Amino acid sequence: MDRVGLIGTGLMGVPMARCILAAGFPLTVWNRTPAKAQALEGDGARLAASAAEVAAEADLLVTMLADGPTVGDVLFAQGVADALRAGGVVADMSSIGVGEAREHAARLTERGVAHLDAPVSGGTVGAEVCSLAIMVGGEPEAFERVRPVFEALGRAVLVGPAGAGQIAKLANQAIVANTIGAVAEALVLAERAGADPARVREALAGGFAGSRILEVHGERMIARDFAARGKVSTHIKDLKNAFDAAHEVGVELPYASVSQALFEAVLQSAGDVDHAGLWLEIDRRAGQ
Amino acid sequence: MDRVGLIGTGLMGVPMARCILAAGFPLTVWNRTPAKAQALEGDGARLAASAAEVAAEADLLVTMLADGPTVGDVLFAQGVADALRAGGVVADMSSIGVGEAREHAARLTERGVAHLDAPVSGGTVGAEVCSLAIMVGGEPEAFERVRPVFEALGRAVLVGPAGAGQIAKLANQAIVANTIGAVAEALVLAERAGADPARVREALAGGFAGSRILEVHGERMIARDFAARGKVSTHIKDLKNAFDAAHEVGVELPYASVSQALFEAVLQSAGDVDHAGLWLEIDRRAGQ
Repeated sequence: MDRVGLIGTGLMGVPMARCILAAGFPLTVWNRTPAKAQALEGDGARLAASAAEVAAEADLLVTMLADGPTVGDVLFAQGVADALRAGGVVADMSSIGVGEAREHAARLTERGVAHLDAPVSGGTVGAEVCSLAIMVGGEPEAFERVRPVFEALGRAVLVGPAGAGQIAKLANQAIVANTIGAVAEALVLAERAGADPARVREALAGGFAGSRILEVHGERMIARDFAARGKVSTHIKDLKNAFDAAHEVGVELPYASVSQALFEAVLQSAGDVDHAGLWLEIDRRAGQ
Repeated sequence: MDRVGLIGTGLMGVPMARCILAAGFPLTVWNRTPAKAQALEGDGARLAASAAEVAAEADLLVTMLADGPTVGDVLFAQGVADALRAGGVVADMSSIGVGEAREHAARLTERGVAHLDAPVSGGTVGAEVCSLAIMVGGEPEAFERVRPVFEALGRAVLVGPAGAGQIAKLANQAIVANTIGAVAEALVLAERAGADPARVREALAGGFAGSRILEVHGERMIARDFAARGKVSTHIKDLKNAFDAAHEVGVELPYASVSQALFEAVLQSAGDVDHAGLWLEIDRRAGQ
């Protein structure tokens, strides 16, 4: 089997490493903060002394890092691109800018290394049960090579050329934000107008208003449980990236504009709560 | 078994009558245009000569009519309320205004007749397979009496007191409109930014962005298939009712405001197409 390298063993990277190991791949890992990678030795991972060392021995390199500049630094300033063999593949599963992903793809392609942008949806829960949704941009040949590793991590779909994975992730985040808003607006209306919002949620589930957000975030709204799983601040950052991408191609995002304004208001009034906390602002505006 | 009366055998009423008959209830029907009711004789329904005659012989009376004024006219100007026995129940499954439903409930309650507002979601397709989502407002005792008939028609949830069923229906319609908008916005962004929207839809399904609208209406957007199942004009009317209900209790509907403006623009530019045609306006604004 191909030896897999994984750079970045944070909240997402650690359970993802375990999924890759559980599927039987030999795995080398490295993390800027070594302590976070050490726990994986007990699961059978080999710890490398540097990012370049991971790259030197990996057939397929996975990166799972905080943002675009961090990915760029690891690839091009820490010797990873130099250490990769021609014919290798980098699957960057970080959520980064569309332009950044395209630039990384172009620079690696020049060196004979294939690149996939492959951000995920599903969070740490999805990573822990190896069922992430993986949105992939890049060449079909590279996708086929990495597919067995993706299958160890969840369900992957090739959605287009370089950058398209990041675009799909932005589309995902916009839909999630706007559906949270749609559910919040409807539940506030239902409750204020005299219906039982928990019963309304139950009545609507399974019909055309049914969604994962109605199930999961709708329940948080009804329970007034806004302990952060997905943070408002993270969603604001995601929507900002979506506006950047939309602006570049002249697309208006009227719903995401509403969500962004409501998230900003929640951040001011309630702090960095769960993104289901958008409910708080719609409810606050309705007064007493 | 209780004898059921059904007034209103239009596009929804005819398949609903068949569901009630299939469950074994004796059924009397009446329709303003008799031709629409006559087909049901072959299924075992008895045709009455007037709405009042249906009411006189029914233990449970179901109405399925076009709007609030029509329901009010049938109940109070055509002798139905007078013909109903004290102790009877009217389940009005029409989609009408919240205030209208409450008024009908109050006037019937004065006469010793129970009233449920029980609008449905699921359309003619849901009616044909007897799997409507039924949102019910009223007293628990009346709900329990009508429950066997509701079970013949789909899945019913009691969501609160008189009017609450109509409120839940408005919440449902607002979520449907806004989720159509959220999906349209994301698919336009994805396509314009270079991803394959069909693949993006596939990648997102099953994750937090997953919804019935992404499945059904997302597919219509990708296929550019806007032949009307749910009409834009109907959805505009539903949102207007939602704004009326929201205004009465001081709730803002920021997402529904966006949807209403987009639907109005679609109606102007493309006519009374399917509500998934909201996509057309977001795409049009993105230019060439």
